[in-house]
Amino acid sequence: MGNTTIKVALLGAGNVGSQVARMLTEDAESLQDRIGASVELIGIAVRDTSAKRHYEAAPELYTTDADALIDAADVVIELTGGIEPARTRILRALNAGKSVVSGNKALLAKHGVELAAAAAKSGAQLSYEAAVAGAIPILRPLRDSLAGDQITRVLGIMNGTTNYILDQMDTTGAQFSDALAEAQRLGYAEADPTADIEGHDAASKAAIVASLAFHSDFTIDDVHCEGITSITADDVAAAAADGYVIKLLAVCEKDGEGVNIRVNPTLVPRSHPLASVHGAFNAVFVQAENAGELMFYGPGAGGAPTASAVLGDFVSLARRLVLGGPGIPESSFAQLAATPMNDVVSRYSVGIVVEDKLGVLANIARIFAEHGVSIETMRQAKGTGDGTSASIRIVTHRATDANLRKTMAVVDALDTVRDITSVIRVEG
Amino acid sequence: MGNTTIKVALLGAGNVGSQVARMLTEDAESLQDRIGASVELIGIAVRDTSAKRHYEAAPELYTTDADALIDAADVVIELTGGIEPARTRILRALNAGKSVVSGNKALLAKHGVELAAAAAKSGAQLSYEAAVAGAIPILRPLRDSLAGDQITRVLGIMNGTTNYILDQMDTTGAQFSDALAEAQRLGYAEADPTADIEGHDAASKAAIVASLAFHSDFTIDDVHCEGITSITADDVAAAAADGYVIKLLAVCEKDGEGVNIRVNPTLVPRSHPLASVHGAFNAVFVQAENAGELMFYGPGAGGAPTASAVLGDFVSLARRLVLGGPGIPESSFAQLAATPMNDVVSRYSVGIVVEDKLGVLANIARIFAEHGVSIETMRQAKGTGDGTSASIRIVTHRATDANLRKTMAVVDALDTVRDITSVIRVEG
Repeated sequence: MGNTTIKVALLGAGNVGSQVARMLTEDAESLQDRIGASVELIGIAVRDTSAKRHYEAAPELYTTDADALIDAADVVIELTGGIEPARTRILRALNAGKSVVSGNKALLAKHGVELAAAAAKSGAQLSYEAAVAGAIPILRPLRDSLAGDQITRVLGIMNGTTNYILDQMDTTGAQFSDALAEAQRLGYAEADPTADIEGHDAASKAAIVASLAFHSDFTIDDVHCEGITSITADDVAAAAADGYVIKLLAVCEKDGEGVNIRVNPTLVPRSHPLASVHGAFNAVFVQAENAGELMFYGPGAGGAPTASAVLGDFVSLARRLVLGGPGIPESSFAQLAATPMNDVVSRYSVGIVVEDKLGVLANIARIFAEHGVSIETMRQAKGTGDGTSASIRIVTHRATDANLRKTMAVVDALDTVRDITSVIRVEG
Repeated sequence: MGNTTIKVALLGAGNVGSQVARMLTEDAESLQDRIGASVELIGIAVRDTSAKRHYEAAPELYTTDADALIDAADVVIELTGGIEPARTRILRALNAGKSVVSGNKALLAKHGVELAAAAAKSGAQLSYEAAVAGAIPILRPLRDSLAGDQITRVLGIMNGTTNYILDQMDTTGAQFSDALAEAQRLGYAEADPTADIEGHDAASKAAIVASLAFHSDFTIDDVHCEGITSITADDVAAAAADGYVIKLLAVCEKDGEGVNIRVNPTLVPRSHPLASVHGAFNAVFVQAENAGELMFYGPGAGGAPTASAVLGDFVSLARRLVLGGPGIPESSFAQLAATPMNDVVSRYSVGIVVEDKLGVLANIARIFAEHGVSIETMRQAKGTGDGTSASIRIVTHRATDANLRKTMAVVDALDTVRDITSVIRVEG
């Protein structure tokens, strides 16, 4: 790659596309550091340039001529969804040797083999981490990190809408229709929720995951698909009574010399890691012969999280274009400094044994305040048994390490303090 | 890479090394498919060839001459641990342009910058996913998947020994010394547990993670480190009373223009995903500006899981050697078939409304048995309210989809069956 600017064409400016446009523009300097070349967003292809735009910063970038935009670009990011014209446009790019990042699960689950073949033929790269489980890195770990292992099974909660609905039914006892209505009201489900609640969305993702996990070409036609529309509040209650929660799972499992790929409601034991995936979150549980059981968890949808996955693909792919090799740059362009512990801010839990006398606690509280350490709770745990001393537990608001240490030194020197039993940081 | 065999030198034959030797040998055919070249383990360097060997299959591979082995290899896998002679040997390989996979966290946390520079200079690849969190893919997601995002914080349970001890203290009320003794008895802690319980092991991993997450060169000297030896049963009980659990966390967080890197015991709210990481498992929780909150969970140690991470690095790196490009092969070498749903085996939970009459349940049980579907539990949920019917819930043992469907068709046709309310698969 001779030029030092990578020209990017963005197809689609919806929820995810507009976030990608924002990140490519706002983070341009950081992206240049990461890639080793500057990045220019040369245009955003949309159906109607007069329609409301999610990304308003650069109205001059919008165009309806996707083909001209593709022809002028080095890399194409496709976020339009649907089979056509996305398929034809991606093939146009790949056939011309231009690398493509896509988040189009329906297209990849149907025509992934054709697209991969076009990329292989021209030497272009094709990446699509954003197509499965939003921001959660799952395709790269399957393809690279587990590349030396034998995957036996993948279980995934890969659709946030249905997980939100089932989680609501489980926690509130709601009927399916009420939970769906609530999900629609909150924007977790679309006006036409068919693709989510009938399992089609998860089925596309299952086909993509199974292809990578088992090194085979599967399409959505290989996936057995059942949705959650027949799940009743009674089913959920009966499952709960037996220690289960109902989840819509995408299951890809080795089965002799074949692979079974299906999406169906499943009773999952409460003790299973997937059982505690709540709300619209996604999680993918992987079993491999040597690695054992792994789980990947995070936001499975949403503009910014999905855009993060798109940008991750883009940076990795752009590094390879620039370096012409494995695409691993030196990691140290930022060269941030390690900050001294003195300045680190945290909450603290402090255990102190004091003499059981009037005024002792007030005195300790005053010392904390004098050192700028604000007390959130102070609790007398219990007498220590000798009748003259008491054990107290203080949880502080956020304070610097230096202030906390000074406070504890002064407290420790008090005649009325017998012992400082513990000083432990508090998360959250 | 002109030759079609990749010659591998293995340094170290301990717990992980012996598993790597086994996988390189036993899975040779599969590795060839994945890489596009055959793989030959040409030797295993050990200190003493007469010592007991974990991997017995090929005694002729063992040698004490590591340098000669390195010089004859294309790729070097270093699993000896410690700073020297590992550092000198890895530099010997990298300087000669030979790519290296290492699991040596202490070395990478101390001399990672020097090793990366040597690799960059000669164009060799250096990978070390196994150095952090065993089988859990965390370095590659940080480096590639989140390459377009701004990471703000990483919280990790990166040491299985201390997590086992703290988990025991939390669940049994044990004192530290008793929990440590139990961990030693079960092989989770070494005879000299210092590196684990004082936090040094986690600190090495924190330095490696912080370097990748924040694109900066950090070493173990930048990490503030506190162990768990002062944590008492009282501390654990007090934390529990307030809704917390104590975990040894590795924390890497952006702090203005710097990064704070530390390992310390921390009170984690029970509702936090890291709170439910039990036993010797590891988990890494990542916060990024756009991706939001992600978690990676799995076995953080052990011979086979760690060897899986080593092999993943090796296959990814070998693909790049063979392809000379981005190292992404077509995914379809295995070409497994999708299996028909009829043959899929699962447990089922079935809800049936029946007439409340003598013999109805026995008749249904007989029909299940006749179709080869074994009943695990049959439970009468309750009367349906009309006084003439009852709702029953059957959970089956594992049965094929075909047998279950035939069973349900016959049951559905019974005069005494009013409704089949649900048929849902059961996981676990």
